[in-house]
Amino acid sequence: MSDSLLHAIVPAGGAGTRLWPLSRRTAPKFLLDLTGAGRTLLQQTVDRLRPLTGAGGVTVVTGTAHAAAVRAQLPELAEADLLAEPSPRDSMAAIGLAAAVLARRHGDVVVGSFAADHVVRDTAAFERAVREAVAVARAGYVVTIGIEADRPSTAFGYIRAGEPLGGAGTPTARRVVGFTEKPDADTAAAYLATGEYRWNAGMFVVRAAVLLDHLAAERPALHAGLGEIADAWDTDARQEVLARVWPDLEKVAIDHAIAEPVAARGGVAVVPAAMGWDDVGDFASLATLVPPADDDVRVLGPAADVLTVDADGALVVPGSGRTVTVLGIPDAVVVDTPDAVLVTTRAHAQQVKQVVDLLRDGRDRLL
Amino acid sequence: MSDSLLHAIVPAGGAGTRLWPLSRRTAPKFLLDLTGAGRTLLQQTVDRLRPLTGAGGVTVVTGTAHAAAVRAQLPELAEADLLAEPSPRDSMAAIGLAAAVLARRHGDVVVGSFAADHVVRDTAAFERAVREAVAVARAGYVVTIGIEADRPSTAFGYIRAGEPLGGAGTPTARRVVGFTEKPDADTAAAYLATGEYRWNAGMFVVRAAVLLDHLAAERPALHAGLGEIADAWDTDARQEVLARVWPDLEKVAIDHAIAEPVAARGGVAVVPAAMGWDDVGDFASLATLVPPADDDVRVLGPAADVLTVDADGALVVPGSGRTVTVLGIPDAVVVDTPDAVLVTTRAHAQQVKQVVDLLRDGRDRLL
Repeated sequence: MSDSLLHAIVPAGGAGTRLWPLSRRTAPKFLLDLTGAGRTLLQQTVDRLRPLTGAGGVTVVTGTAHAAAVRAQLPELAEADLLAEPSPRDSMAAIGLAAAVLARRHGDVVVGSFAADHVVRDTAAFERAVREAVAVARAGYVVTIGIEADRPSTAFGYIRAGEPLGGAGTPTARRVVGFTEKPDADTAAAYLATGEYRWNAGMFVVRAAVLLDHLAAERPALHAGLGEIADAWDTDARQEVLARVWPDLEKVAIDHAIAEPVAARGGVAVVPAAMGWDDVGDFASLATLVPPADDDVRVLGPAADVLTVDADGALVVPGSGRTVTVLGIPDAVVVDTPDAVLVTTRAHAQQVKQVVDLLRDGRDRLL
Repeated sequence: MSDSLLHAIVPAGGAGTRLWPLSRRTAPKFLLDLTGAGRTLLQQTVDRLRPLTGAGGVTVVTGTAHAAAVRAQLPELAEADLLAEPSPRDSMAAIGLAAAVLARRHGDVVVGSFAADHVVRDTAAFERAVREAVAVARAGYVVTIGIEADRPSTAFGYIRAGEPLGGAGTPTARRVVGFTEKPDADTAAAYLATGEYRWNAGMFVVRAAVLLDHLAAERPALHAGLGEIADAWDTDARQEVLARVWPDLEKVAIDHAIAEPVAARGGVAVVPAAMGWDDVGDFASLATLVPPADDDVRVLGPAADVLTVDADGALVVPGSGRTVTVLGIPDAVVVDTPDAVLVTTRAHAQQVKQVVDLLRDGRDRLL
């Protein structure tokens, strides 16, 4: 048993398609400094977790294509604490593999999964929530951290909270009634009005053995495959077993594989928290994270490269050394990179993936 | 006396500020191919005039800074037919100098001035109008070609036509009542309703001696200065006289110096014409000159570099080899160059000069 509060699992994947052309296949969202903080989202995620995990307590799971970049950004990460996936197999395989490896290395520790590409502005609130989640997890629950919904967002899934758990040292935790997909605007407004719904930030805290037992019950084949890989991970057989077993693992999200069915049986708890969380899912979201300059214009990059007139609320990302000028388009989004420029508005932020889909046809080099 | 129909004077000046960043100090509008025709506006202007002037009948007046570029674009232009101005002194000095030099070389020929940076789509109509203008000019009038106004434009000055001249061979020519500055929208609509107003395209056709006599009467100092320079032009004294006299010449437009006062005395005629003329004054104007592709999107440059979604009516000018994507901004104007990008809309085309004015402060290298 390790004596740290928890072992953090950081799945570092996802293309960030709606942040194209900032985010690319070779430079996905988690590898980028999207807040102008001087640290990438991955680095900020690990910075946020270290006080809770201690020095050796973070395990990053990423694709082999990004392993070198992750190592370069996290020089303090021990070689053993980076798990490279041969191919994307969704969040259950990524988190399940890490939990299985950690269980074999450290026993039935509490593990927590935290995406590498989210933003948390109130670190103290984050820490408080995770500490309470760990206490609830020790009692055998799958614990999710539910983000206080301050607007009827249609961009996030929701967690519906039920009665308080009422345990000692877990003052805010409640049982989870269920999870929902991203709602439409009316539904989101109705959720907000009840006060029972929180945003699902994909943060799960659970004992490794509890997670693996649920996986064995819900997805026995996936559990067996991950177990075989985990058995071989710290041996010479790793590559052989990975190559044989990994490609056939089921692709499923942890929400569907574990959280939803276990919640239906009363086994999931939520710790509500307001922590300035955002998944930075698109440029509208990114715009809210960049501090405004004059005229409510937000510049992510060298401000000297940007000139705006009558463009209140614009987000400009100068990234090629060129001067970017915007005239008369409020809420414009202009992203300038060395090989591609995107011009749109904050209201169209979700549709950027349409542009990316069109680029797949003949302009693949830009993705 | 030359035996050509007329000697054309092509003032090649003007920055085209509202076409920044396409148009620059070092690459002003007249040096650019703005219609995708494979010929620059200057080249198209000369192409249009040659059938009327004959091989040696075009004289270009430009700034010394652009003389080399003009020569490169017009290799057939004789060295004597390029007059280089040491500094900009407005249209009266440019046209007056050329008229004075041509009068000394060829006698009292008919001269016609045609800006180097306008577009004419119906060349046959242009030729018909110029031929009639020459006939009227021979009778001693200052003749302007009045463009049929097909919309209440506020971007052009207007010519008010009076009674027909009624001479033989000049069936459409009318006396000019007066000239007006660019009107506001209500005034422009009222002009259109009367049927008496034409757009002033700055095309003047007049006998050289008539022009110089009017200049002597209206602006005797300017006339004297230009005369002294013209006397020296084809001699070794040209540079000395230019350096001494040119800097102090009055800066005044030919409209104010000649056309308006002479019209008030009944000495100006107009030949009306519909010839698909445009001064390509801004990106809204330019957009109408570029043929539309799918979705009414207009691309000036390599179409393969542009991708648009929900951007009907957009004008995109890809000019750096990068891919330019526009999403959800109808009538967007995006101009991409190696060192600057402009993002605006057709409705803001006139305000581009505000951007240019801001660039003067610290970003002069981009102008």
